[in-house]
Amino acid sequence: MFGGVIVVKELALSKVYQLLEPGPVAMLTTAHKGCANVMTMSWHMMVEFEPPQVACIVSNANHSFAALRATGECVIAIPAWRLAAKVVKVGNCSGRDIDKFAAFGLSTLPAARVAPPLIRECFANLECKITDKRLVNKYNLFILEVVKAWIDPAQRKPKTIHHHGYGTFVVDGPTIKLRSRMR
Amino acid sequence: MFGGVIVVKELALSKVYQLLEPGPVAMLTTAHKGCANVMTMSWHMMVEFEPPQVACIVSNANHSFAALRATGECVIAIPAWRLAAKVVKVGNCSGRDIDKFAAFGLSTLPAARVAPPLIRECFANLECKITDKRLVNKYNLFILEVVKAWIDPAQRKPKTIHHHGYGTFVVDGPTIKLRSRMR
Repeated sequence: MFGGVIVVKELALSKVYQLLEPGPVAMLTTAHKGCANVMTMSWHMMVEFEPPQVACIVSNANHSFAALRATGECVIAIPAWRLAAKVVKVGNCSGRDIDKFAAFGLSTLPAARVAPPLIRECFANLECKITDKRLVNKYNLFILEVVKAWIDPAQRKPKTIHHHGYGTFVVDGPTIKLRSRMR
Repeated sequence: MFGGVIVVKELALSKVYQLLEPGPVAMLTTAHKGCANVMTMSWHMMVEFEPPQVACIVSNANHSFAALRATGECVIAIPAWRLAAKVVKVGNCSGRDIDKFAAFGLSTLPAARVAPPLIRECFANLECKITDKRLVNKYNLFILEVVKAWIDPAQRKPKTIHHHGYGTFVVDGPTIKLRSRMR
């Protein structure tokens, strides 16, 4: 509930892996000293089903790195393919220089358990807290726990994008179902 | 060159991230005490461009875990969607019980720098060595360096699969190109 209108709906934490395991391009928001920021991120993976743990690389060349390390909090937001142009723009500039939310018309919503904002236009938002920093210095690798997850019920069967380098993205195609015992 | 016939072609290590960053379902081969094995894996991410470093989760419930930890070597093989049924079968049984290569008709080729085999039917094979085990005990998380990479030139524009849980996979759809400064 935000402002009396339901715009995002809670997602069971046990289902979070189904969003990140397929490797979609994501965005990551942080908040530091009163300023929110957002970056584009493709280097992430699931680590544990439940509670959902995620690993991600946030380069120390990124403005978001200091905010993430200092506050221990972020939101991983997953855009559908219609946001692709904005996702690239977010990835091509730095929060050192501009307010990317304003510059690219991304709306924010308050998160429930962390300070960084949700991104309204994304079909999923995962509130995360850092749980392990042992590999940060050597690899910029953070281990996060997803503490709250939201989806936008208005975006049904969203198609995500997968980065192949230099602005080339593959959009989700057909879904196939195979008999499997794998979770 | 294998047996005098070129069947796979070397890929520049600088391009490896373009294969793994999009989050395809992969297979992982190991070799231990004279026995090769293969498992299905979706929890992996890039860590560094070049030399390419990769993080992956190999559960200690998997037969491959002991082989990987003991030998420090594996091959990450990437199947196109036409192998999806075999990929699921590989993921639904254990190398403790059967020889999965024989059971599912997967051919092997010798790797150049590691003992585990390449998988002939996969369009890409990445020879890897473990470089960091600090997060193995707590998260089953291995940091690997890709030391040699191969692609099958006969498989052009292979479509990969992305796992959404319980045997549901999304196949690569259309490619879009956007102007970007991101590598």
